[in-house]
Amino acid sequence: MDDPSSPLLDDIRDLKGSDGERGLVIAEGPLICGRLLESRFPVRAVFGFGGRLETFVDTHGAELQRRGIPVYEVPRAVMAEVAGYDMHRGLLASADRPAPLRVADVLAGARTVVVLEGVGDHENIGAIFRNAAGMGIDGVLFGASTADPLYRRSVRVSMGHALRTAFAHIDGTPTTWQRGLAELQEAGFHVVALTPAPDAVQLKDALLDQRTGRQHERVAFLVGAEGPGLTEHAMRACDVRAQIPMAPGTDSLNVATSAAVAFYERMR
Amino acid sequence: MDDPSSPLLDDIRDLKGSDGERGLVIAEGPLICGRLLESRFPVRAVFGFGGRLETFVDTHGAELQRRGIPVYEVPRAVMAEVAGYDMHRGLLASADRPAPLRVADVLAGARTVVVLEGVGDHENIGAIFRNAAGMGIDGVLFGASTADPLYRRSVRVSMGHALRTAFAHIDGTPTTWQRGLAELQEAGFHVVALTPAPDAVQLKDALLDQRTGRQHERVAFLVGAEGPGLTEHAMRACDVRAQIPMAPGTDSLNVATSAAVAFYERMR
Repeated sequence: MDDPSSPLLDDIRDLKGSDGERGLVIAEGPLICGRLLESRFPVRAVFGFGGRLETFVDTHGAELQRRGIPVYEVPRAVMAEVAGYDMHRGLLASADRPAPLRVADVLAGARTVVVLEGVGDHENIGAIFRNAAGMGIDGVLFGASTADPLYRRSVRVSMGHALRTAFAHIDGTPTTWQRGLAELQEAGFHVVALTPAPDAVQLKDALLDQRTGRQHERVAFLVGAEGPGLTEHAMRACDVRAQIPMAPGTDSLNVATSAAVAFYERMR
Repeated sequence: MDDPSSPLLDDIRDLKGSDGERGLVIAEGPLICGRLLESRFPVRAVFGFGGRLETFVDTHGAELQRRGIPVYEVPRAVMAEVAGYDMHRGLLASADRPAPLRVADVLAGARTVVVLEGVGDHENIGAIFRNAAGMGIDGVLFGASTADPLYRRSVRVSMGHALRTAFAHIDGTPTTWQRGLAELQEAGFHVVALTPAPDAVQLKDALLDQRTGRQHERVAFLVGAEGPGLTEHAMRACDVRAQIPMAPGTDSLNVATSAAVAFYERMR
């Protein structure tokens, strides 16, 4: 495919712009393209050049053929011109976004979930997916004012786990956000809000069921953006406010790092 | 200061290039410039515009005057032209790099340190400083193949903690690196290497002194780059190899995130 103006390359055109994805999902590089292929997202096409494309076709050729997924060999310079940046990873894949999961789908069978409020940074969202997958968290829920988890940068930083881990949005009006948090508690989740507030309970104690001295069966971690933190409403809706022990006079941790520490305490 | 060619602005010229710092330290924004002013680094000058500069001078004016530190008001457009990017944080400060600390300086009085090997990414190094400061780690040691902790991006991601937390280099030849690790053990540090190896000891157990059942008095965490991990030599030089519990079939955590989890276990 040597013609940069070909409509067959429209899925990967001008990816740098914030509207780059046009409602698609774009995977970059062999690892993430492979994970896209195993995901619930219907793959539309694969684009690449050189050894990366060859190896990918060698590995996944039978499946690509069976599913009728076109593979386009695009020289590096043409790919750079179309996409708007030099794709040194040598491989891109595009997919459609199927109907989103519902909150109940994510909660079904889950032991631990994380709920984000106000996390607007794609890199932090990607890192939370990566950390969640690494430490056995079952699902991610998106509350008010959160950025798109399927944005290219989120997917890349997540190492493709944004495509694997179940997630759903509790969004819309403040009322639905409020109802979403209540739904978690009705489903038996112990809702733990992470906060740097000095009067919050220590994280290790916050996960314990006071009657049994063991961790609650179902736990939902609620995390907010760095700086503003969780809203008053989210704080009121939780069962316990938990803090990570910090040295005096320092700043709070990055939101994805705080979440990783909380996931570790859960897994420990 | 309206003339972009003035030699008085040379400290902040062409900061985007990899050789941008010319052996200086550059702090960006009010938080980090304030921390630079409190640090052991001799501040050379402050540059800025608008409200950020006014507030900074209101807060630190007496000290700037006492120490004879010049303050240059530079219009945003001139600053962008000189530095090579739009400094929306409105404030820069430059400092000299004093003689580096020695390993013994960092170890003196320290209870917990972290030792980096092969961590070549400035953002990861900055994040490790931020996490170390937040969770009470006393010092950072740089082993073989690590990037400059005083690079602008490291300092920014560290929230200025790269300027506050004691650090030193154990570098040069493989022999000095080997000797450096031995020096840690001679100083009574229990050296814990973080690794995703499935036969490693669980992190929570790796910190314990088998005789007392309590954590070792002095602990040094050894962390390597994502991907290659620690070298054979570093692995052999440690007292114990420790793993963070991970869900099956997932990737290892980012190096700064792994370090944060280890610091949390130490602080817990």
